[in-house]
Amino acid sequence: MNKPSIPKGTRDFSPEEMAKRNYIFDTIRDVYALYGFQQIETPAMETLQTLMGKYGEEGDKLLFKILNSGDYLSKVSDDELLQRHALPLAAKLCEKGLRYDLTVPFARYVVMHREELQLPFKRYQIQPVWRADRPQKGRYREFYQCDADVVGSDSLLNEVEFMQIIDTVFSRFGVRVQIKINNRKILSGIAETIGAGDKIIDITVAIDKLDKIGLDNVNEELRNAGLNDETIARLQPIITLSGTNDEKLSVIADLLKDSETGQKGVEETRFILHTLADCGLKNELQFDLTLARGLNYYTGAIFEVKALDVEIGSITGGGRYDNLTGIFGIQGLSGVGISFGADRIFDVLNALDLYPKNAINATKVLFINFGETETAYCLPVLSELRSNGIRAEIYPDKAKMKKQMTYANAKHIPFVALAGDNEIAENKITVKNMETGTQQLVSAKELITLLS
Amino acid sequence: MNKPSIPKGTRDFSPEEMAKRNYIFDTIRDVYALYGFQQIETPAMETLQTLMGKYGEEGDKLLFKILNSGDYLSKVSDDELLQRHALPLAAKLCEKGLRYDLTVPFARYVVMHREELQLPFKRYQIQPVWRADRPQKGRYREFYQCDADVVGSDSLLNEVEFMQIIDTVFSRFGVRVQIKINNRKILSGIAETIGAGDKIIDITVAIDKLDKIGLDNVNEELRNAGLNDETIARLQPIITLSGTNDEKLSVIADLLKDSETGQKGVEETRFILHTLADCGLKNELQFDLTLARGLNYYTGAIFEVKALDVEIGSITGGGRYDNLTGIFGIQGLSGVGISFGADRIFDVLNALDLYPKNAINATKVLFINFGETETAYCLPVLSELRSNGIRAEIYPDKAKMKKQMTYANAKHIPFVALAGDNEIAENKITVKNMETGTQQLVSAKELITLLS
Repeated sequence: MNKPSIPKGTRDFSPEEMAKRNYIFDTIRDVYALYGFQQIETPAMETLQTLMGKYGEEGDKLLFKILNSGDYLSKVSDDELLQRHALPLAAKLCEKGLRYDLTVPFARYVVMHREELQLPFKRYQIQPVWRADRPQKGRYREFYQCDADVVGSDSLLNEVEFMQIIDTVFSRFGVRVQIKINNRKILSGIAETIGAGDKIIDITVAIDKLDKIGLDNVNEELRNAGLNDETIARLQPIITLSGTNDEKLSVIADLLKDSETGQKGVEETRFILHTLADCGLKNELQFDLTLARGLNYYTGAIFEVKALDVEIGSITGGGRYDNLTGIFGIQGLSGVGISFGADRIFDVLNALDLYPKNAINATKVLFINFGETETAYCLPVLSELRSNGIRAEIYPDKAKMKKQMTYANAKHIPFVALAGDNEIAENKITVKNMETGTQQLVSAKELITLLS
Repeated sequence: MNKPSIPKGTRDFSPEEMAKRNYIFDTIRDVYALYGFQQIETPAMETLQTLMGKYGEEGDKLLFKILNSGDYLSKVSDDELLQRHALPLAAKLCEKGLRYDLTVPFARYVVMHREELQLPFKRYQIQPVWRADRPQKGRYREFYQCDADVVGSDSLLNEVEFMQIIDTVFSRFGVRVQIKINNRKILSGIAETIGAGDKIIDITVAIDKLDKIGLDNVNEELRNAGLNDETIARLQPIITLSGTNDEKLSVIADLLKDSETGQKGVEETRFILHTLADCGLKNELQFDLTLARGLNYYTGAIFEVKALDVEIGSITGGGRYDNLTGIFGIQGLSGVGISFGADRIFDVLNALDLYPKNAINATKVLFINFGETETAYCLPVLSELRSNGIRAEIYPDKAKMKKQMTYANAKHIPFVALAGDNEIAENKITVKNMETGTQQLVSAKELITLLS
């Protein structure tokens, strides 16, 4: 018999990992709900018609496709088989695939359930997605996304609330973060103003390196990217942009005074920042012109979160998009959303040792099993503890004391309860604190108080 | 553009459905944890090597298989393609499949992680499974299972605790149930004693009909199943078995006095029932000889739960098996487990209208949006509410009052908060109870008290 294994790029989650992940998901879930977001779930499998063509050519290849059930060859001719064209043949062998992200299924959901939905629709969704990427450190073929989106509202209050959500979530985690905000309209305005619309990504990438490589080298990179000297000269105030958010926005506003789009972007950003000024955010919100985010569908505010005390990429991101459901035939539904990067947040909390102990340690007390009589004495006590919400176990077998203690230690159970002849005679229980080693003889009632 | 759809047999879950499902899962999860069970998760995809041959021939066909990534045809010859043998060819095109249940992945998990596990290992797992069954009412191609198992302990205390878990879960739901218990060893003992080992399922099926069709017809069915008159005569005390659990067990014990296995089954059942007698179960536990459960791998206690106030099949079941990990090469690990049928429990709670309101209604208060000034006044109040754990929303757009009220109604939000010029001048908020229609002018502090 072969040793069993799991598909590459996938993971088992142990009890400790699950407890940590649940702590992350529950925290995010709680905060989403505080802001009126409601959870939905969509099937793991979507039709390939829903999925194909939504993630670019590369994405189509990275979709996990599911072989049709039954006689999956019936619609394929011998010729088609022998031609061995992997992608078109796959489309005949398979009509379903595993979801690749939560955004496309959400768009599909909104279109299919349009009639029952009350707009604006604030939904969150925490589910795994699958990508046939080459597995590498920190990149998996199955991973969870935790997205929240508001669809059907143009109001910038949504952006404001997402910043509050981010701030609250990371405050609860105890992770110090910097929230970066930018606006696609500002980037478009810059491109428009300097007449280099196609170079906006090169520009933001180059500017981003200012601290590391200095102004001269940034300008050199811009020149290499194909910008002429005049354009580069006009970009100087942007490249050397510094000061407070307000100061930076003033410089930009001045530079983009002839671009309607650019002005709109500045206004939006100002509104978001000014509104948040009175909301008592615990983390810094920084207007960062170099924030571009890869996804082309963003059309307004974009944001990204960096942990301040751990070297790791962006741990949360999102933005405004104008046409979520256009791909499925319903135009003009604007939306804005964020996505928490659960795997990276998991690593950050590990690195900073920020998991609360009570979130990880499950069982509060283990009753030692001395045999049938003693067990019969313990069971009603266990019932009482549990009906008081105390997580309690009894070791199921009458094993050696050492084995039972090893079990308690391995599960990080903080208290052990013992009841032998003496305890039974006195109608009490000996409880041992596993950390300090101290023992106490207590009644069932006292035990509940002690463990609550 | 085609209207989007989802694969047949799969479902979207709306916010309300999700809230109800979460209520079910959270309740089960809480109770599992009270008894020291810890959660694990396994990947949606398993290797076909892990899955194939574990669910019978029919099961192999019902596995969703995932087309290999990249050039999935590279290992297949032209001949093999043209032969069009669906199942063997699928094994070449696919090396992964979607999990079919949680038991086989759990066995695989135990074997792979044997070294890190502290036995007995008490795990629970709540994840979807996929089966390419023909979809029909109440049967889906994607559905959740919520399993708990103890592996590595022969102690009957595990069975006892599972009965308590079942009792606690359904008590929390407010569903009156009957828990039926039987033991495979008793069934084997009967078969052994009457010398009709292969007929045990026929026998239990026939006995189960006693109430409906009467003794004569039951005996007729047994005759049709191939039992001779002597055997049927010896079965009479079993068929007409009645009375308390103890009385029934006495009759059986007497009948099976020469079968070691049968006696063992009686003893086990007595131990479980007697131990539970002092544990204050709220639901009836009935020894039911006709309970057989289809799964062949059970070897000891078996149990099943029926709702008393709704006509629906078994809503929970489980039992003891002696060789969970044998299929993966590790022999002798005994286990016992249960599985709650989430979809049926969902239907039962719906039918009896047992969902607590606060589990379903998410947002507690909606702030009406009267424009920028009013919103600026409301936002700090919203922050305060939320930091007090109150779920609060502000309608993001300055829409017509009626539209905002419709939104509150559609989301079943019980309170609406309004702040116009008057409220702002007085530093107060008007709060309206959506059910009674009454309005109050209150301070932010009073609002928190009111909504807490």
